[in-house]
Amino acid sequence: MKKFMDKDFLLNTDMAKKLYHEAAAGQPVFDYHCHLSPQEIAENRRFDNLAEIWLAGDHYKWRAMRANGVDERFITGDAEPYEKFLAWAKTAPRLLGNPLYHWTHLELRRYFDIDTPLDVRSAGDIWKAANERLRKDANLSVYGIFNKFNVYAVGTTDDPADSLEYHEKIAREAETETKVLPSFRPDKAFEIGKAGFAEYISTLAKAAGRPVKSFGDMLAALSARIEYFDKRGCRTSDHDLEYVPFEPALNGGKEAPDTVWEKEAAAIFDKVMSGKTAEPREIEFYKTFILCFLAAEYKKRGWAMQLHMNALRSINSEALGRLGPNTGFDVIHDHPAAAKLARLLNAMNLDGLPKTILYSLNPKDYYSLATIMGSFQSPELPGKMQLGSAWWFLDNRDGMEQQIKILASLGLLSRFVGMLTDSRSFLSYPRHEYFRRILCNIVGEWADNGEIPHDWELLSDMIKNISFSNISSYLEGF
Amino acid sequence: MKKFMDKDFLLNTDMAKKLYHEAAAGQPVFDYHCHLSPQEIAENRRFDNLAEIWLAGDHYKWRAMRANGVDERFITGDAEPYEKFLAWAKTAPRLLGNPLYHWTHLELRRYFDIDTPLDVRSAGDIWKAANERLRKDANLSVYGIFNKFNVYAVGTTDDPADSLEYHEKIAREAETETKVLPSFRPDKAFEIGKAGFAEYISTLAKAAGRPVKSFGDMLAALSARIEYFDKRGCRTSDHDLEYVPFEPALNGGKEAPDTVWEKEAAAIFDKVMSGKTAEPREIEFYKTFILCFLAAEYKKRGWAMQLHMNALRSINSEALGRLGPNTGFDVIHDHPAAAKLARLLNAMNLDGLPKTILYSLNPKDYYSLATIMGSFQSPELPGKMQLGSAWWFLDNRDGMEQQIKILASLGLLSRFVGMLTDSRSFLSYPRHEYFRRILCNIVGEWADNGEIPHDWELLSDMIKNISFSNISSYLEGF
Amino acid sequence: MKKFMDKDFLLNTDMAKKLYHEAAAGQPVFDYHCHLSPQEIAENRRFDNLAEIWLAGDHYKWRAMRANGVDERFITGDAEPYEKFLAWAKTAPRLLGNPLYHWTHLELRRYFDIDTPLDVRSAGDIWKAANERLRKDANLSVYGIFNKFNVYAVGTTDDPADSLEYHEKIAREAETETKVLPSFRPDKAFEIGKAGFAEYISTLAKAAGRPVKSFGDMLAALSARIEYFDKRGCRTSDHDLEYVPFEPALNGGKEAPDTVWEKEAAAIFDKVMSGKTAEPREIEFYKTFILCFLAAEYKKRGWAMQLHMNALRSINSEALGRLGPNTGFDVIHDHPAAAKLARLLNAMNLDGLPKTILYSLNPKDYYSLATIMGSFQSPELPGKMQLGSAWWFLDNRDGMEQQIKILASLGLLSRFVGMLTDSRSFLSYPRHEYFRRILCNIVGEWADNGEIPHDWELLSDMIKNISFSNISSYLEGF
Repeated sequence: MKKFMDKDFLLNTDMAKKLYHEAAAGQPVFDYHCHLSPQEIAENRRFDNLAEIWLAGDHYKWRAMRANGVDERFITGDAEPYEKFLAWAKTAPRLLGNPLYHWTHLELRRYFDIDTPLDVRSAGDIWKAANERLRKDANLSVYGIFNKFNVYAVGTTDDPADSLEYHEKIAREAETETKVLPSFRPDKAFEIGKAGFAEYISTLAKAAGRPVKSFGDMLAALSARIEYFDKRGCRTSDHDLEYVPFEPALNGGKEAPDTVWEKEAAAIFDKVMSGKTAEPREIEFYKTFILCFLAAEYKKRGWAMQLHMNALRSINSEALGRLGPNTGFDVIHDHPAAAKLARLLNAMNLDGLPKTILYSLNPKDYYSLATIMGSFQSPELPGKMQLGSAWWFLDNRDGMEQQIKILASLGLLSRFVGMLTDSRSFLSYPRHEYFRRILCNIVGEWADNGEIPHDWELLSDMIKNISFSNISSYLEGF
Repeated sequence: MKKFMDKDFLLNTDMAKKLYHEAAAGQPVFDYHCHLSPQEIAENRRFDNLAEIWLAGDHYKWRAMRANGVDERFITGDAEPYEKFLAWAKTAPRLLGNPLYHWTHLELRRYFDIDTPLDVRSAGDIWKAANERLRKDANLSVYGIFNKFNVYAVGTTDDPADSLEYHEKIAREAETETKVLPSFRPDKAFEIGKAGFAEYISTLAKAAGRPVKSFGDMLAALSARIEYFDKRGCRTSDHDLEYVPFEPALNGGKEAPDTVWEKEAAAIFDKVMSGKTAEPREIEFYKTFILCFLAAEYKKRGWAMQLHMNALRSINSEALGRLGPNTGFDVIHDHPAAAKLARLLNAMNLDGLPKTILYSLNPKDYYSLATIMGSFQSPELPGKMQLGSAWWFLDNRDGMEQQIKILASLGLLSRFVGMLTDSRSFLSYPRHEYFRRILCNIVGEWADNGEIPHDWELLSDMIKNISFSNISSYLEGF
Repeated sequence: MKKFMDKDFLLNTDMAKKLYHEAAAGQPVFDYHCHLSPQEIAENRRFDNLAEIWLAGDHYKWRAMRANGVDERFITGDAEPYEKFLAWAKTAPRLLGNPLYHWTHLELRRYFDIDTPLDVRSAGDIWKAANERLRKDANLSVYGIFNKFNVYAVGTTDDPADSLEYHEKIAREAETETKVLPSFRPDKAFEIGKAGFAEYISTLAKAAGRPVKSFGDMLAALSARIEYFDKRGCRTSDHDLEYVPFEPALNGGKEAPDTVWEKEAAAIFDKVMSGKTAEPREIEFYKTFILCFLAAEYKKRGWAMQLHMNALRSINSEALGRLGPNTGFDVIHDHPAAAKLARLLNAMNLDGLPKTILYSLNPKDYYSLATIMGSFQSPELPGKMQLGSAWWFLDNRDGMEQQIKILASLGLLSRFVGMLTDSRSFLSYPRHEYFRRILCNIVGEWADNGEIPHDWELLSDMIKNISFSNISSYLEGF
């Protein structure tokens, strides 16, 4: 019987413990994909209370509270901060088996040195103690947190039209060693079927400082923004694809972009810019073309391209109207993905395929993704194509174990670029610890069960690489 | 090394054992979804022999015998009861690893105090001993069994046109504490594409005691039957959906039922009632409309709606002709389910979404179902939307562990309404024991592995709730 | 802590160890589906060096080396054999968690008595020692290997037009007890949508020694080749189906082949033979018809039909142009499979369904496959319908455990026909050992955990049957 969340939490064998404590724990954190606010970083924000830093913006916790029957007033409504915290404290003990239970208690321990389980009885004391720390502890400003958790770099998520002024400010002035890198997320630039596309193109043109009168102008504007991001340290892009597009009906029978594809894409662009609506297959074809165009641009600059797929967004239209998007009403989609993803990557490969990290929100896709990426590896660099860490709803113990084991069986776990938080919160760094414990436990069990050699150098190097060095070489090349 | 099926069967840690023996085992059974015969209950039926109570109607065992090469004569044919029992006894030792092996031996132990493994050598003695108990033991009448297994309530499955005469008889006369509640299963009322639809509508009209000359009449007849069922204790409905319907082509662009939808549905109804055949998309649209209509009716009365999906029925047409439906030729389907289920529930949510329990026969759907249901939770009651227990082919150890762990990771396991047998047999109550052992083992391992607190009150309450209290509050509101 | 790959490798309980060492290990190997070269067998080939026997033709290792960033020159290019071996030795330590790591070290141990882990430091010594054994050890000719690994029979994979001259030569002259049986793999005969179909029909006609002027002639030619294969010991066929075909639009509403189906198929055949291109649904219908025709032919002769599905081939068109097919660019597809597979087997069942073994490259399909096959079992023989062993990318520890447990839960594991290598290499026989260890570990854990009886006769018989006797009775009937 182990004590709750002691120092060997999730570590079940001697080698697992040794690997975690002696190899993983000391590695820096390269949180290469997150949704932190560059402004809050630049301002080295402090937080007034636990509700503000913990509950505002966290749609994982909102979903859990809704499932527990909590009224929306205490979730996103106008209740007092302590009332909201109390609603969360009442929900926490209901979450046994959910990663939120582990995250919550890791965060209380690692940020606030509180090891009492959160519930309605402990809520008052925890609120008081944590808030006092938030106000007084130098380690609980943004830079304090970065330092405390040995955060080597964070990658924010930014629109192509963003000025990146806060990234510049941080680079210029900030009193932190942590690198704050922008990431290029151009979803709006290819979502030609969504309302507001034409307006977005104007915004993009303005950001690029050049008029966009034609499809060619638009592509040039995108390139200019990529160049702008590149100069400010961007090494990754990110794309959210409800489904992977590949529409062969309009491409003249060609399997990769050429002048026929470009002419078709230009015609669709002109049609939509003139106020008409594109057909579904035109939308899909347009996305295919733009993704290929972007891929080639990334490739030229050595960027890594991230493709996220199979999230179905905002399914509850009543809640969407009331609360807006990204408030906890997105779900795991189940589109078949293999055929189109294979053809899209093949098209890119003929034209310019950058380093690529594939994520799906549906674990059924791991098998196809891991084998598809394995068909586009390259001597350019080991592990050029990556199966990304378990994403969002799958970012839990079972989900991470599944991703790690499938990757190990079908590819090279040792080349894996590892964990990222994808989080909006400054309290999420213990998720790297959580991932590393799970990783060390798997590898340690293999060793102690005689399935791999008890070779400390080999195993500890592998753990250090997956914890930090792989992603660092992958994005920085040294 | 543990003895076969001893008192700690499936319980691997100290806390697992304590949770099962001290918290779970004593809880009543609320078997809220089954296929028992109300008539047999009303008559407090006794059984002549083990073949009658164990093999007649059990298509799980039939499938296993067929896979073992047993001739149909010994399965559903005219062989003598003992010959059939012997065919089963020969098959049993072939079933190591199959839930039937566990169920068989749990049933022999718990009903007949027989702990010899069943095989061809033990068959004769077991036949004799069990049959003697069946004839003499007061605990082996229907009410005896209910009492012995602490069965608080059972939910039968009934057609809207059913008179519920046996339910009334039981409520009036029966010498049992066990509640016998009808459930409303109106599949025939919306399967407009199947032969016999028009005839069924006549039957329904007759049951409702009112003529059905129009679509509006038919909806009124359905409402009347819902009211009738409600008065007789019905708290749940059940729907078998090969695939989840949502056909947007005919709904005038609306996302929820309105007069446009209703007019379209009425036109399809009239078309079919006049002897014509509906197109596939008309059938799908019609189902969508009726399901939304029913959902709103259930919601008004506080019923729980059960949706079962992804069973593909009667795939062997030769066997269907020879033996009829529900004889062991149904399979796990693999339709993508997310998009349509999300839109169907959204339509209902705009119109009146009752408490809902989602089941899929394909475990790939658990991820989508658990996140979709999580997008329609409500302050009306905690755990309004439920991921149902592992169903049918998945009702085995691995299947239940998968359902429990995915639910825990993506939702609130603590709010789970738990187990049901879905069985046609009075010998199935040990499946609740089986489920509870598996549940306690998971939660106990978490605790003994330091992943959740060793807090007896918290853990034992959770186990008691999932075993009984959650479903009781869910359906009875107290 | 266990030593790396000791005698109890993968065996975690006492019963697991006893079952492997006392029941499984001594069983002969019936490798009923592989891709060995009949010519190399007939010539009792010896190998010059480890690169030749280990790396040539092994696209599993090629994929791993590419993922590790190895230049193609060292994979399929013109590098020296030792350079290629060294590239593999550098990759091996990167493969912790991959089945290649286990296979590599099992092969070094069992063939060459080398138990040093392979890496760049040990590469030189291993190269020298293994090559010396390859040149001198009588056990390392083909027949030596067959004898050393107790190989009772191997099933090669052969085109219908193949003369089977090497099979005849082996039967006539070979100094080996191992049976070398052809298998009938007629993919080219029904891939009417692929280039070269008409030419293939000429080749087939020539092999059959009869002109093919009509569809009827072509069917007769196929029958003649089946008869020819049958006379030379063939007991199985094999079919690679990217997706399972069943196209109802052209079959006149019939659910099984009849004269309407045959006329439609003949028209498509004539169309393609006259140089025109078939439509997608014509191709699918044609495949359906031919598969049903072949199934009935197999049934007449008591053959087993193997259906492999959900592999998507050659997705990287640049690599396909450079290296050709079967070089490591195939992936796991994710077509829904249930509905069409159910209807195809139903059509065959009405017409003549042989013993059938179903394989999918996507584990999501196991649930549907296991229940679909369970709907076509028959008193003809126990376990007539089989879920094949984990295939290709799934042929690893987790994949095999998943296949074994799903089969056990949904069918009769005890009737399973077990393992095959599907390999192009003479070094793959330890994969049978690997499978048997995994199988014994599962069954042993069940026993030691009290989930099945500690009945040595029952358990050891089951292990022996799955290791050898089941497949032997299945194919040879005794």
